[in-house]
Amino acid sequence: MGLSSRVIDLNADLGEGVGDDSAMITLVTSANVACGFHAGTPRELLATCREAAAAGVRIGAQVSYPDLSGFGRRFMDLAPDDLFADIVYQIGALRALTESVGATVEYLKPHGALYNAVVHHTTQAGVVVEAAAASGLPLMCLPGSEVERIAGSADVPVIREAFADRGYTPEGTLVPRSEPGALLTDPAEVAARVLELAETGRITAIDGTVVEVIADSVCLHGDTPGAVEHARRVRAALARAGVDVRAR
Amino acid sequence: MGLSSRVIDLNADLGEGVGDDSAMITLVTSANVACGFHAGTPRELLATCREAAAAGVRIGAQVSYPDLSGFGRRFMDLAPDDLFADIVYQIGALRALTESVGATVEYLKPHGALYNAVVHHTTQAGVVVEAAAASGLPLMCLPGSEVERIAGSADVPVIREAFADRGYTPEGTLVPRSEPGALLTDPAEVAARVLELAETGRITAIDGTVVEVIADSVCLHGDTPGAVEHARRVRAALARAGVDVRAR
Amino acid sequence: MGLSSRVIDLNADLGEGVGDDSAMITLVTSANVACGFHAGTPRELLATCREAAAAGVRIGAQVSYPDLSGFGRRFMDLAPDDLFADIVYQIGALRALTESVGATVEYLKPHGALYNAVVHHTTQAGVVVEAAAASGLPLMCLPGSEVERIAGSADVPVIREAFADRGYTPEGTLVPRSEPGALLTDPAEVAARVLELAETGRITAIDGTVVEVIADSVCLHGDTPGAVEHARRVRAALARAGVDVRAR
Amino acid sequence: MGLSSRVIDLNADLGEGVGDDSAMITLVTSANVACGFHAGTPRELLATCREAAAAGVRIGAQVSYPDLSGFGRRFMDLAPDDLFADIVYQIGALRALTESVGATVEYLKPHGALYNAVVHHTTQAGVVVEAAAASGLPLMCLPGSEVERIAGSADVPVIREAFADRGYTPEGTLVPRSEPGALLTDPAEVAARVLELAETGRITAIDGTVVEVIADSVCLHGDTPGAVEHARRVRAALARAGVDVRAR
Repeated sequence: MGLSSRVIDLNADLGEGVGDDSAMITLVTSANVACGFHAGTPRELLATCREAAAAGVRIGAQVSYPDLSGFGRRFMDLAPDDLFADIVYQIGALRALTESVGATVEYLKPHGALYNAVVHHTTQAGVVVEAAAASGLPLMCLPGSEVERIAGSADVPVIREAFADRGYTPEGTLVPRSEPGALLTDPAEVAARVLELAETGRITAIDGTVVEVIADSVCLHGDTPGAVEHARRVRAALARAGVDVRAR
Repeated sequence: MGLSSRVIDLNADLGEGVGDDSAMITLVTSANVACGFHAGTPRELLATCREAAAAGVRIGAQVSYPDLSGFGRRFMDLAPDDLFADIVYQIGALRALTESVGATVEYLKPHGALYNAVVHHTTQAGVVVEAAAASGLPLMCLPGSEVERIAGSADVPVIREAFADRGYTPEGTLVPRSEPGALLTDPAEVAARVLELAETGRITAIDGTVVEVIADSVCLHGDTPGAVEHARRVRAALARAGVDVRAR
Repeated sequence: MGLSSRVIDLNADLGEGVGDDSAMITLVTSANVACGFHAGTPRELLATCREAAAAGVRIGAQVSYPDLSGFGRRFMDLAPDDLFADIVYQIGALRALTESVGATVEYLKPHGALYNAVVHHTTQAGVVVEAAAASGLPLMCLPGSEVERIAGSADVPVIREAFADRGYTPEGTLVPRSEPGALLTDPAEVAARVLELAETGRITAIDGTVVEVIADSVCLHGDTPGAVEHARRVRAALARAGVDVRAR
Repeated sequence: MGLSSRVIDLNADLGEGVGDDSAMITLVTSANVACGFHAGTPRELLATCREAAAAGVRIGAQVSYPDLSGFGRRFMDLAPDDLFADIVYQIGALRALTESVGATVEYLKPHGALYNAVVHHTTQAGVVVEAAAASGLPLMCLPGSEVERIAGSADVPVIREAFADRGYTPEGTLVPRSEPGALLTDPAEVAARVLELAETGRITAIDGTVVEVIADSVCLHGDTPGAVEHARRVRAALARAGVDVRAR
């Protein structure tokens, strides 16, 4: 896919009961909707799906470890059978809610610690790909990750994502959160970053190097302070530049 | 539907982590599979669906109030929006698990306190019917209940059930659990009851009166002591009498 | 106790992961801390207890039905044994967290649907009183409620509370939430209400009648929009009038 | 402490809703009671505490990761603040239930994956010791583990335990569960093992070597098939040999 032709998809996490979902839903083109294992009651998720459907926003299932008290942010050493069933359960639950408002779930995205785990954890990455295949859904993931590699072997389509507010290394990987430059907090800088990526397929790394980053979608965090402001600035910059903002 | 032509369906609750599921699954023709809100982890539910599918047993979604600590046995005064979303979520989750093993969910059955509530509680009964309609599933319920009446008005098909081990009043309703004669515990009596029902469409009430009972399916409790023995006796009696035991 | 001598206690719900706890904790003198059954992870509750202890605020255990997905706002028909064990469990959990920061739990307050239930539900009210007695804690409750009456018979001390932002009937009871005038939203009106109560022991009802209201504590809702602003105005009004704001 | 003087304590996991608690409680002298995070509703835990108290059995708090769906058997990478609060919460909850039946919690034992983690995981082991210290409880743990070492430095008393039904290496460590000989299933062998340990302070390893094993308590698994039979045989063997079976 790639963003070659000045088309960009913007995604954000929604239905988590944090942040301003109603505002974000007017600014993104893909909604990673929680499935109840890290956040979201069925009623909240249904309301989020309804809003997303009304706004014409693509809906993805954001699946998590079963970790409500930790918001899915802690690694869990699940056996493959457990993880597979947990993911399939969540996808099905969100699918039913989504279909009850006349929309469909169009992709799968792991949340939090699971997202991070499948960058390297071969077994869990394999299970996530297996669940995507069983569900007939493309997988939103980090380019260069183990889960992307396995999806490729399994012919599971991927939606590779970049991050609007994360620093990049000269190698094109994310600056670890424990290091300086990991997070961009200046809205102007975030908007410039997304615009550069949409127009050139490149990102300026923390050392000033310009690196190629393959991105089918750009993640806007929904729960950070200023998330809505970031998203507004990004949309405005893309609009001025004539970039087409849509899913796929 | 009715059991007029000496055909009978036997259902039991499965996937609840109590009772001997593997034995019961060979004896029933419909499995009310828990959906995680009163019992059952996704892995357990997937295993139950796999066993049911392998045994050719019809799978139903047994939906509950969100009450893990109470096994779904306590009434909860949920708002319609909450209840609707809870039910749709559960159906979808079980559907996805079921479809991953090549089977399908073929009916909806409320569990425990929700089952009892919708006998009388018009609002909750309406929501259950709405969820069945939204999911395109027939509803297993008690004949004469409020939920059956509403399903009728909404053109939602019903599977009316009788109980193998519950006492009946001369009016054809269940003897309340707090009263003597509410439960049949003698396996021979349970088997005779089901046979009478399958052959005649009638049940002998606690006072000896014989009453007509409309039943498309007969519930065998799976978690009572002797449940498997009851089920074996029932199957044997039906086999001797040449009654056809199958779903629909 | 009563507020005769121009002393008033202000309480609010905290540790629920909603609202601005850090601001509220500087404005109230009693914190109803959630116990994990309707909201609050152990780490969040511990942080809240630490903040309350540091601010010299009295800590109460705000116990709930086991209803995380409904925020404890739905009636649950629990058996007495279940409810008793649920409450004792919650009190113990919060006590241990509180004691680990060098403070103590000083009262018990039912939350949400449980609070409302024990206004009328004799069995559940009796269980709440039994749990308070078993825990050696006074009970914060609505004057005139069933739970207050039973606490009286059982010699369990009570902390009667009034509501800063609820309308009162000429009979001194709360205007039901479904009726006009149930909620006061004007900060000036809320502040005037609390001041009137602190200085005179009376409240002006929705029809202008002035009614006596016995109150040992006044509840400031912590999760409504403007909650912090309400609390600031109340504190300022009480300070100007020289009313002593403290627990007991 | 040690078992030098022919005194032995027998412990088992209880309150988990699996196994035959009522039988086990008459055979052990220490009950590791679940605290609700891996198993056990408050009502079940209260009933277990009541039974244990009536039987004069010492009660310990068996704390777990917050992992109900996995029975606490999966490693969770919790931050120290989260783990500390989770453990303190659980201890407090069980303490309150225990005290409501006139008994006390007398030790702390990590359950499942947490038990295994703190054998090696220095950070989590440190947190468990910190929670034991904050609660004033001795810690039941594996001799030679990281958590025992840290408890020693922190002056937290330990109750070192051996396992009745686990194979031992010539070095005195447990045979990993993935290897042959990890589990003893012959009741006679289990009984002989405990008797040998009680009388000599030694265990015969899988290769026939006799190794010294320091044990203040011996764990009898409560949820394996034959658990009660194992326990009966062990008690009988100890009785015949005149070994004093009691806590401490």
